[in-house]
Amino acid sequence: MPPVLNTRVIFKSIPQGYPVPGQTLAADHSQKIDLDNVSLAGGKILAKTLSISIDPYLRGKMNGTEKMSFEIGHPHAVAKVIRSENPKFKVGDHIYGIMDWAEYQIFENVPELRILPPNSGIPWSVFPGKTAYYAWQEVAQGKEGETIYVSTAAGAVGSVVVQLAKQAGLKVIASAGHESKLQFLRDLGADVVFNYKTESMENVLKDHEPIDIYWDHVGGKTTSTVLMHMNTFGRVVVIGQISTYNVAEADAVSNFPQILFRRLTVRGLGVIDHEAKHGDEFYATIPGMIARGELKYNETIVRSLDEAPQLFLDVQKGDNSGKAVIVLADD
Amino acid sequence: MPPVLNTRVIFKSIPQGYPVPGQTLAADHSQKIDLDNVSLAGGKILAKTLSISIDPYLRGKMNGTEKMSFEIGHPHAVAKVIRSENPKFKVGDHIYGIMDWAEYQIFENVPELRILPPNSGIPWSVFPGKTAYYAWQEVAQGKEGETIYVSTAAGAVGSVVVQLAKQAGLKVIASAGHESKLQFLRDLGADVVFNYKTESMENVLKDHEPIDIYWDHVGGKTTSTVLMHMNTFGRVVVIGQISTYNVAEADAVSNFPQILFRRLTVRGLGVIDHEAKHGDEFYATIPGMIARGELKYNETIVRSLDEAPQLFLDVQKGDNSGKAVIVLADD
Repeated sequence: MPPVLNTRVIFKSIPQGYPVPGQTLAADHSQKIDLDNVSLAGGKILAKTLSISIDPYLRGKMNGTEKMSFEIGHPHAVAKVIRSENPKFKVGDHIYGIMDWAEYQIFENVPELRILPPNSGIPWSVFPGKTAYYAWQEVAQGKEGETIYVSTAAGAVGSVVVQLAKQAGLKVIASAGHESKLQFLRDLGADVVFNYKTESMENVLKDHEPIDIYWDHVGGKTTSTVLMHMNTFGRVVVIGQISTYNVAEADAVSNFPQILFRRLTVRGLGVIDHEAKHGDEFYATIPGMIARGELKYNETIVRSLDEAPQLFLDVQKGDNSGKAVIVLADD
Repeated sequence: MPPVLNTRVIFKSIPQGYPVPGQTLAADHSQKIDLDNVSLAGGKILAKTLSISIDPYLRGKMNGTEKMSFEIGHPHAVAKVIRSENPKFKVGDHIYGIMDWAEYQIFENVPELRILPPNSGIPWSVFPGKTAYYAWQEVAQGKEGETIYVSTAAGAVGSVVVQLAKQAGLKVIASAGHESKLQFLRDLGADVVFNYKTESMENVLKDHEPIDIYWDHVGGKTTSTVLMHMNTFGRVVVIGQISTYNVAEADAVSNFPQILFRRLTVRGLGVIDHEAKHGDEFYATIPGMIARGELKYNETIVRSLDEAPQLFLDVQKGDNSGKAVIVLADD
């Protein structure tokens, strides 16, 4: 087979405010790859990308600060091995890890890839809930009778947290910004659902405080407000900071001392850090729950990398619903 | 014996800025107590106060916010039982807990009092290091080869943290604002000592980053600066927020999202919460180390409650050295 086009998405410049499709992040068609002959010497593998997860936090890596620059090209993704010179990976294996936004990719650093169990009964695009599951196990540790507030609750992570919390017997307060999302949250069983754009979060939290767990996807003023309603020994699970990603000067969290006064634990988590500890348990638990309909999910899917920059912007604006995924092939 | 004067310190008004001795916090001589005849019915105990610890965090409880108001009257203190109608406490027992600022006090809620072991070989005023010890065990968990930055390091908590960290094999960066305090820190073995008033913290941290543990006594801009030099998976132990207590509008922590980007754990601790879990271990370990000279300490002592409001102000301004204690009696 002659070399084929290997479409990629490239980080071109640091956005001022919201990313601009085609300018800050753009599809690129300049690269070809010879799938049959490209060298895999030294134990490399060649894989075809199946699905790429477009998560809000990726915007935080586009700010060009010292440590974070140009990591945008590394979303979570699932791919299928099409050639391998590494004995641990065989052709046909499905692998999960941090990958490039590209149709085909070569992996050298294979220890960071996980081989997914076959035949889970759900599409390869559907591996939601991993962040939610890891952070729930690791930090939130919600107990029956406690109250949790989940911000951007209709998103990929939030919607799973709502369900895990309900199953654990917590009272769940959940917010989103569109009526269709609020209905989704009611369907998931959230006890208190509100529209953060039209209702006063302050009043809602006052009615239902104290909050034992705050699932923070937002940061800034939202987090400042929630801290004033936290219970002593509460936990703040910091998974996203969407209010801060697309503005030149983000609102600060104005009441950091509440962490001391209320003896809170505030913890930032990245999903990949907990793969080793909780990964097996996750794959043994969650895909089955999804396949059996015990855990509901919601996806926004596009089918080509050309559409990725726009989907990325939609995710930043909250215009998507549930998990945003680029599905390049079903298998 | 006829009734005797029971001098107390009273919280009179919410300070604007620094507390004003005599106005916001004042000694009060209006109360007498009949030590022989005051009723202890219902299992109460009567105790004579020996020493009261004046800790910076008490200022945070003077702001009159909903949850925190008027708790100023409850510092950590040691007292000696002089009458008891509770079988668990006998005359002569030394007790530790949250007490009033008063020469004599009656306790009803005895479960929160701890009977101190007798004959520890050190004065009753000297029980420093409890906050340091508990938070070290509970959160910091410093490992050999890691780097810790301790702010207000010459204080009651900081100076013990410096020593615990050195003993555990960490590299210790320590700051204070007076030359005498810097010398004390050098004597304790801190590896990097700097004056935060005259040197650039930014530069010092840049030279010694990444910081694995930040012992936060300060908050505000200091904390914002440190967060930019933290290592991935770093721990921020929030024990004080002195920069925020005495100003109308405190500087916010401007970069809360770093908690996510660097996957930090930020935890606020109050010493009393960990008494049950770590108390026995503390008393079995630390007083002996102090008595044998293995743990150094530094105190500023005044001998009457009349001097307490001024000492309280000194602590807020950092004009004291080491632990600030009101010693009303040696035994």
